[in-house]
Amino acid sequence: MLLETIKKANDIKKIPPDKFPQLAEEIRAFLLDHVSRTGGHLASNLGAVELTMALHYVFCLPADKIIWDVGHQSYTHKILTGRQEGFDSLRTLGGMSGFPKRSESPCDAYDTGHSSTSISAGVGYVCARDLKGEDYHVISVIGDGALTGGMAYEAINNASALKKNFIIVLNDNEMSISENVGGISSYLSNMRTTEGYFELKAGVKNSLNKIPGLGPAAIKQIHKTKDSLKRLMIPGMFFEDMGLTYLGPINGHDCNRMIQVFQEAKRVSGPVLVHVKTEKGRGYEPAMRHPARFHGTAAFDLEHGIPLNNNGKANYTDIFSTVMRKFGDREEKVVAVTAAMPDGTGLKRFRNMFPDRFFDVGIAEEHAVTFAAGLALGGMIPVVAVYSSFLQRAVDQIIEDVCLQNLHVIFAVDRAGLVGSDGETHQGCFDLSYLSMIPNMTVMAPKNKWELSDMMKFAVSYDGPIAVRYPRGEAYDGLEEFREPIVRGRSEMIYRGKGIALLAVGSMVKTAEAVRKKLLEDGDNPTLVNARFVKPLDKKMLDSLAKDHEVIVTMEENVKSGGFGSAVVEYLHTAYPEVQVLSAALPDVFMEHGSPEKLKEKAGIDAGSIYNRIKEAR
Amino acid sequence: MLLETIKKANDIKKIPPDKFPQLAEEIRAFLLDHVSRTGGHLASNLGAVELTMALHYVFCLPADKIIWDVGHQSYTHKILTGRQEGFDSLRTLGGMSGFPKRSESPCDAYDTGHSSTSISAGVGYVCARDLKGEDYHVISVIGDGALTGGMAYEAINNASALKKNFIIVLNDNEMSISENVGGISSYLSNMRTTEGYFELKAGVKNSLNKIPGLGPAAIKQIHKTKDSLKRLMIPGMFFEDMGLTYLGPINGHDCNRMIQVFQEAKRVSGPVLVHVKTEKGRGYEPAMRHPARFHGTAAFDLEHGIPLNNNGKANYTDIFSTVMRKFGDREEKVVAVTAAMPDGTGLKRFRNMFPDRFFDVGIAEEHAVTFAAGLALGGMIPVVAVYSSFLQRAVDQIIEDVCLQNLHVIFAVDRAGLVGSDGETHQGCFDLSYLSMIPNMTVMAPKNKWELSDMMKFAVSYDGPIAVRYPRGEAYDGLEEFREPIVRGRSEMIYRGKGIALLAVGSMVKTAEAVRKKLLEDGDNPTLVNARFVKPLDKKMLDSLAKDHEVIVTMEENVKSGGFGSAVVEYLHTAYPEVQVLSAALPDVFMEHGSPEKLKEKAGIDAGSIYNRIKEAR
Repeated sequence: MLLETIKKANDIKKIPPDKFPQLAEEIRAFLLDHVSRTGGHLASNLGAVELTMALHYVFCLPADKIIWDVGHQSYTHKILTGRQEGFDSLRTLGGMSGFPKRSESPCDAYDTGHSSTSISAGVGYVCARDLKGEDYHVISVIGDGALTGGMAYEAINNASALKKNFIIVLNDNEMSISENVGGISSYLSNMRTTEGYFELKAGVKNSLNKIPGLGPAAIKQIHKTKDSLKRLMIPGMFFEDMGLTYLGPINGHDCNRMIQVFQEAKRVSGPVLVHVKTEKGRGYEPAMRHPARFHGTAAFDLEHGIPLNNNGKANYTDIFSTVMRKFGDREEKVVAVTAAMPDGTGLKRFRNMFPDRFFDVGIAEEHAVTFAAGLALGGMIPVVAVYSSFLQRAVDQIIEDVCLQNLHVIFAVDRAGLVGSDGETHQGCFDLSYLSMIPNMTVMAPKNKWELSDMMKFAVSYDGPIAVRYPRGEAYDGLEEFREPIVRGRSEMIYRGKGIALLAVGSMVKTAEAVRKKLLEDGDNPTLVNARFVKPLDKKMLDSLAKDHEVIVTMEENVKSGGFGSAVVEYLHTAYPEVQVLSAALPDVFMEHGSPEKLKEKAGIDAGSIYNRIKEAR
Repeated sequence: MLLETIKKANDIKKIPPDKFPQLAEEIRAFLLDHVSRTGGHLASNLGAVELTMALHYVFCLPADKIIWDVGHQSYTHKILTGRQEGFDSLRTLGGMSGFPKRSESPCDAYDTGHSSTSISAGVGYVCARDLKGEDYHVISVIGDGALTGGMAYEAINNASALKKNFIIVLNDNEMSISENVGGISSYLSNMRTTEGYFELKAGVKNSLNKIPGLGPAAIKQIHKTKDSLKRLMIPGMFFEDMGLTYLGPINGHDCNRMIQVFQEAKRVSGPVLVHVKTEKGRGYEPAMRHPARFHGTAAFDLEHGIPLNNNGKANYTDIFSTVMRKFGDREEKVVAVTAAMPDGTGLKRFRNMFPDRFFDVGIAEEHAVTFAAGLALGGMIPVVAVYSSFLQRAVDQIIEDVCLQNLHVIFAVDRAGLVGSDGETHQGCFDLSYLSMIPNMTVMAPKNKWELSDMMKFAVSYDGPIAVRYPRGEAYDGLEEFREPIVRGRSEMIYRGKGIALLAVGSMVKTAEAVRKKLLEDGDNPTLVNARFVKPLDKKMLDSLAKDHEVIVTMEENVKSGGFGSAVVEYLHTAYPEVQVLSAALPDVFMEHGSPEKLKEKAGIDAGSIYNRIKEAR
């Protein structure tokens, strides 16, 4: 086993490159063995094995800085930097992260999780290096999907102007999480059909001489036309136009070729882009056939490529998917917008049935939201389905393009609250705050699967900016008998008791119900209210609760600052200072990876912790 | 006067195009006459006169939709749509906005204020139009500066994939607000030196025939190389590579030429980009020489191009500018980052003295923040200077790239609070909320000009993410005797009284001092505290105040949700429910344009309103 000889960074340099195919095979077997048991990101990691090996062979870590865009493709990097053992605890509380983490290894140059940031971070490193007169290489590895994100373009634009030595590796697997979309994608696929750059470099004049009837005078004339040769022959003219030196495309599963080109890239002066073509899921047939399904996966049966432990229960995304399909039939104005997440957001079915009314804009949340504003002005009802933590990218557009114009745009905010194993960058901790602060916005959260459906219907019937936020994972199917019609700004009384009122947002209604049961056992008769609306606040309900409750407990999966509890306290303090308020919310720290249950305990928002707080307070 | 014949949209069509030069001259005289008296955006409007006229001649409003990127160049559009009278009340409370406003005219298709959104909005309109089977043109007019913003690229990418009829006009004046930066800018300037597209179209074969020795076989061979001709000859290959049809570059002061090309653009199938070259400040010599100074201007002396009513008092931006210059000398690690605002943010002096440590990344706030994260990791201390409302663009990057990694990045948040005449899109109403919700972040606001300087020094000495927010306009120079050293999380006691405590953030300390004086006249002895830190909250001070104050009045220029008052109430309600809290904050509505003084009255956060609330409450 070659892999056993790799104990720390740079050990790979001791292995002769002619044995790299064997090493690649061992790494793939390692990845499949582990990820099939623990779950994690698979297809992108299988695609980046040789690319990572070649980078580690050519560059010297931790002196050189490799910045992995998004970071879910960094497993081989972790293996090659002495973290093989970490895979047993991958993405569990206290265990190894699924993303690069500076706290894990000095070889991790940048913490990531969100897309399209690596070039920006790389340019920053590069400028700091040159100002300090230091000497190291900076390599940003970015996928073709991440290249659809605008900030990647902003960064290339800046890198080009700065003209500093900097290597961008475009890891082009012809798709981001799902299929790739947009002009840049079709540009890249055209490039794939052309001859490479190296052949050209080897024989510029030869190429010209191949054109029959082209004499020396003609060649001179052609040279005079600025950049004409490049324009004739080079596939990467787009990047050259952007001010980068372009090398490629090269086969991203051919280590020797990549080693050769990375060595050349080290010698290029100024920013250089190396275009590497890889295959997502390489080496594992089910992942090659279904790369989206194996993008991020739960534990699965290795032989058949089928998920384990699927209890068959619907999650919130499934419910959303079904509701959208129904809208497709009944509401012809409804259109759907996703930022490269047709699978993750559940819009795939809508896309298949109503392709004209479905828009995947690429990893481009900013554009998605403003595009939706245009759709609304044009008379449609756009539903923008996006994960809570990714919607952070579009706060300005929600404010300026949607809410300022008071447009009927529906935000389906998936993965709101603690998401679990993806960790810090993917927790949906802030959406209640950044949405509630905006004038004209309405913010809802459903208690169970039926209510998500009802809220989506309400959102379509409403006329204005409106968001529905719901968590990752299995949809709660309790409290099914409580299904009062949705009225804007009105919460739902579940059980009317007295003394203690539990006032819970969305997913926390289930937790509140558990708290209520514990309190009932103690002889208390607590009230349980489903908040439904975080904005506007149901002040009438608070007035009513204040009359015969000494303690109101607010519960939400969001940070405290700007959240639901904060709005409740503010109202009550003026009107009913005597009512005690306990707010259960996420603490003012970044919540790491781990199971949502354990994270909730850690955050003190599980039923046990909240129950204990109530008992202490009385 | 031709201008007198224009009373409403499409009236321009009654004027024969050979009289357009005269009309353009009249419009320029009108703009200069009015803007020199009222203030407003000038240089961009002088540059877009003929472009707007040509658009209005070719297209039919309001059926066709013209979307003005940013929108500060829309004055001629307002003139041509019957709003000449509005210029007397330009940018005053209740008067005409300086930006497109759907509430003003059906000819305003989209409300704007922030950069790089027009293509996204346009694509939205286009998709809605086609889904509804409607028939109108959509034209997004975007500057070359706005094209450095990533979401413009995201939108082009999407427009290209959708292949729908859509016209983008690139209004290329070779600079955004200040000089243009980046690869796309140098690409555009190379294009300016090449021959146009039309000459090529007129004689493709002619061009080839001019190359001596190129026989018919060679021509055939060249045709076979995919896109080779375009690559040889077309200046807009970059845009063609992105999937747009490129027309241009054309002279943006030649109405006839533009009319001809816009007519052609109407006939093109799919998305088309018309590249128009204009001159910022055209027709007014001072504005041509100093386009940045005349980008947005106060009233000025028309003859000499010198601002009126300059009282010579420093504003906060000046103070920041001076502090940065000092850092330049003393702190070699300090570097400055701006998103196309070296003038507006006051970094110009730093740039001139320390060009290697100054980075203008273009209108690219997202990149700016992540770039700063990279700089910090590389060992520098980046100061990101950006307006409050534009920093909304980078909320995700502040969370994920800076705060999650707990990096020492300093945010100098200018134009925080009510900015006045620019209106809704430029008010800095949310920064305290969106910054305070983020773990690891520290948020400060100075009471006067000396404190801004002290806080910047503190920020450089601190190690972690930290923001200083300060308002537009004249820096307060009162309370100069209060200059306690800055300690993280500690507020500053100005006057210790009892009964009523005024607890004010930044610019509101001045207001609080005015309230205090009114209360003193009534025989009260109010306490005045300068909050200094919005995050972390000074709980010790609150503990101390709670002992002998019945009322605590929080004062901030920020929305209530997630703001300072909200954090204060939350703490006090638990610890001191008996203390009454009055929060003076911006209301949950978008604040229109007008003088900051009048807007404060309207919002109820002027000294008089707050005083009245206190009196009522007791």
